Amino acid sequence: MERIEPTAVQQVAVIGTGVIGAGWTAHFLRQGLDVVVYDPAPDAEAALRTKIAEVWPIMEQLGLMPEASPDRWRFANHVADAVAAAHFVQENAPERLAVKQTVLAEIDASTPPETVISSSTSGYAMTDMQILCWHHPERTVVSHPFNPPYLIPLVEVVGGKQTEPAVVDWTADFWTAMGKKPLKMTKELPGFIANRLQEAMWREALHMLHSGMATIEEIDAAITTGPGLRWAIMGPMLTFHLAGGAQGMAHMLDHFNPNEFDHWTFLSAPQITEELKSRIVAGCEAEADGRSIQQLEQERDIALVALLKALSHCRETGGA
Amino acid sequence: MERIEPTAVQQVAVIGTGVIGAGWTAHFLRQGLDVVVYDPAPDAEAALRTKIAEVWPIMEQLGLMPEASPDRWRFANHVADAVAAAHFVQENAPERLAVKQTVLAEIDASTPPETVISSSTSGYAMTDMQILCWHHPERTVVSHPFNPPYLIPLVEVVGGKQTEPAVVDWTADFWTAMGKKPLKMTKELPGFIANRLQEAMWREALHMLHSGMATIEEIDAAITTGPGLRWAIMGPMLTFHLAGGAQGMAHMLDHFNPNEFDHWTFLSAPQITEELKSRIVAGCEAEADGRSIQQLEQERDIALVALLKALSHCRETGGA
Repeated sequence: MERIEPTAVQQVAVIGTGVIGAGWTAHFLRQGLDVVVYDPAPDAEAALRTKIAEVWPIMEQLGLMPEASPDRWRFANHVADAVAAAHFVQENAPERLAVKQTVLAEIDASTPPETVISSSTSGYAMTDMQILCWHHPERTVVSHPFNPPYLIPLVEVVGGKQTEPAVVDWTADFWTAMGKKPLKMTKELPGFIANRLQEAMWREALHMLHSGMATIEEIDAAITTGPGLRWAIMGPMLTFHLAGGAQGMAHMLDHFNPNEFDHWTFLSAPQITEELKSRIVAGCEAEADGRSIQQLEQERDIALVALLKALSHCRETGGA
Repeated sequence: MERIEPTAVQQVAVIGTGVIGAGWTAHFLRQGLDVVVYDPAPDAEAALRTKIAEVWPIMEQLGLMPEASPDRWRFANHVADAVAAAHFVQENAPERLAVKQTVLAEIDASTPPETVISSSTSGYAMTDMQILCWHHPERTVVSHPFNPPYLIPLVEVVGGKQTEPAVVDWTADFWTAMGKKPLKMTKELPGFIANRLQEAMWREALHMLHSGMATIEEIDAAITTGPGLRWAIMGPMLTFHLAGGAQGMAHMLDHFNPNEFDHWTFLSAPQITEELKSRIVAGCEAEADGRSIQQLEQERDIALVALLKALSHCRETGGA
């Protein structure tokens, strides 16, 4: 049988309904799909019902697909029951390798070969997780979301050694159809991309706490009132491209070379060779895609004003 | 003579009108102040005029103080002329220690002792910068902004060994009156707080580029469509407090202890002792200030929806 088109998926299964699995369920319901879920915890069904009721007003504010309903889900009795008729399965089991391997193997044994089996893992490689999938490991793939998955667009998509490249493409297209921003990776990196960047900041924060340099509240305030506002609009690289004035990143690298500023963090930097420097500058120019520093500044400013106004309105009316 | 009240400041001087100095000038004009500026570059006055004209529509959108005007500034002939009548001086010279020392000394020699002299330095300690201020080093202080200073609220305020603590307090109060969010630091940390956190992420990004793991565009997309959206609303610590479900940070630390996940980044982590763990959890609880995980999730979701809608509207109409 042929695999269904990514845009034609109508029924999905969600295995594991903790913070991430419950979030995926809400997102799929908003998109107008039928969802069958399973979780072995005794209170899982009631907890999921509560969570969906809690976030449904948020789904309504974002806009529902025509067929969307908070009731188009059922709780299955076991994994095989949940996944049997699904076009796509999202696994959200606890973050332990042996658990992931076993649950994926059970899903593999209970689904037709054309069903794509995707894992929410935060850091395991599919190469390691798919080893017990005896039947069709070629349709297993990682789709790493960010909490809450019903609001954050990023999904990192990457296969393992046994995964067919076409399955990675199919999965990325499926997420695009689901309103997400898939980042298709060709290499299995520990922690993928975004978690490595998050983890680096987290480590510096822990070092600062450990040595009494700053409190939790100071660290968080420094981000939310400072660079965090920019990172919602431009990534760290393009942000620095704009910090050097009209000459952009090339000027920045001359002035803030980490080899000279190694005292700004507890963490070590790579040597900035001329070759690496050229790649950084070329990458920023590729991302800028012909836009001058001035144009980028204007775009950034318009977006920052919109964001500051939205957040300020929100704080006045009960948001964060 | 007594120092003027921080809320009564009417005339300020801006020394150095590059990216940061020009940004400060626009901010002070929006706040209804008179600004006298000086920069030794031959084209500085014309460039500043252009920059103010460019960002003034942004200032209007944010809302002007009653007396605000894009014309309430003049270009002085030298440093002494610029600072003579100022209640407050913001120095934005190039980021080289000898230049900072010399410029601050010249300002010190040209202002009455009650005038506060503040530096935009990204990383130097005031202890090192104030050594040539023979007259009144006790009124020199760092006010570290983030680009663009007319939009990003954070200003890190910290004194040097010779700075009076009252001057640090005065400066923080001045920034609050100027609509900013000062973060008053009691210790001089290399890179202050936010730059250390930024620098950590930047280093991991450089390592990833260096080893061919990800491109500039992938790194930036991973942040802006992923964790960057959360960091505009909640800092990295409170974000992780919400990732562990109802048990918050304590649960997170059991599951994502960096000592077990050291393969997620090139950077080293501190040992998470029981004592450090307790401090992290206590800090998150202090910041949550009685709000349950569920309340925090609701606040986050409301803010994320507002932010996603604002950014999406912006992209449709020409913003980033």
